[in-house]
Amino acid sequence: MSAPRTGMLLVVSGPSGSGKTTLCRRLADSGEVRYSISCTTRPPRPGEVNGRDYHFLTREEFERRIVAGDFLEHAEVHGNLYGSLKSEVISRLAAGADVVMDIDVQGAAQVRSCVDPEIRNAFVDLFVMPPGEAELLERLSGRGTDSDEVISLRMANALEEMRHWPSYTYVLLSSTREEDYSRFLSLVICERMRVARIRSADAAGLAVV
Amino acid sequence: MSAPRTGMLLVVSGPSGSGKTTLCRRLADSGEVRYSISCTTRPPRPGEVNGRDYHFLTREEFERRIVAGDFLEHAEVHGNLYGSLKSEVISRLAAGADVVMDIDVQGAAQVRSCVDPEIRNAFVDLFVMPPGEAELLERLSGRGTDSDEVISLRMANALEEMRHWPSYTYVLLSSTREEDYSRFLSLVICERMRVARIRSADAAGLAVV
Repeated sequence: MSAPRTGMLLVVSGPSGSGKTTLCRRLADSGEVRYSISCTTRPPRPGEVNGRDYHFLTREEFERRIVAGDFLEHAEVHGNLYGSLKSEVISRLAAGADVVMDIDVQGAAQVRSCVDPEIRNAFVDLFVMPPGEAELLERLSGRGTDSDEVISLRMANALEEMRHWPSYTYVLLSSTREEDYSRFLSLVICERMRVARIRSADAAGLAVV
Repeated sequence: MSAPRTGMLLVVSGPSGSGKTTLCRRLADSGEVRYSISCTTRPPRPGEVNGRDYHFLTREEFERRIVAGDFLEHAEVHGNLYGSLKSEVISRLAAGADVVMDIDVQGAAQVRSCVDPEIRNAFVDLFVMPPGEAELLERLSGRGTDSDEVISLRMANALEEMRHWPSYTYVLLSSTREEDYSRFLSLVICERMRVARIRSADAAGLAVV
């Protein structure tokens, strides 16, 4: 049993090799949290449904909404724009759903700087840190089919991203997959007990008076 | 694996019938956290050891230390003084141990108002809320040997104490014993990932750079 409350916005960052995407997917698949549906200007791929996989926007529309301040965060990747709408996230939070965003350090910094009270009150951020350098290198080498240059670049990018962990509230130092998930779930369970997100209307009921 | 860090000071309150004392004892018995050793002016009972069960102080010494600001919190109960020394708690925290204090709302308010940076940085507070009124009444009726007046007084005290839950960071709405303990443990695991308590000296190591 838990108290009725507004949702949390769980922002998760970490370099390739940290395992953060696996953690977020597993949590979403378990039904514990929801991904917010992103917007993009890239064309839909076969089978992708507008409003389910992405909100597909024209570049003109996307840029108009950037200017209007509608995005919680956005970025350009390989010539396409991607972003998350504040309205999308806020409506889910208000309904009591917990929302997870798996985004890089720049995206997380944008969300962190948001001044909307609904976002600020919901915001929780976690940095997933890969284990030692040797283990990270092994994870980044992956299938063994990539060149040393590609692996070196990945490693350099990971090390650069890892410099940002002190900006986060929580850091999960990755060990085994099960241990990581257990601690990730503990974070969610703990943050659901946060008084600041319990609705004042329900608070009276909670106090049995 | 977790990051090297300073300890947390976990302050737990809740009325009789909330089960908070059982939670704290179980957590301490598991070796996850330590109780701080309190000071008291009451005489030792047979078998109690000074420095293990309590620090036994004379009233004169206790009062001198109150004036000196040595106590994190203190209270007079049935004519005896009880209190926790700041130095005792801070030295444990500095050694990386997590300390639990099972104290009432007045004691928690004293700890919360402490301005020492070591305490403020370590401080986490949780209010354990009993379930609905009927269940609370059942828990407070206990062994069935108490008079209606005694039970009514306990209920009134519990309801008064429960008014204070919004002052806490976390609230655990009690359900079953196992579910409560699982969520209590989640809080501890989550708070151990808090960046603010990871030692800066170890932080460099964490970032693998």
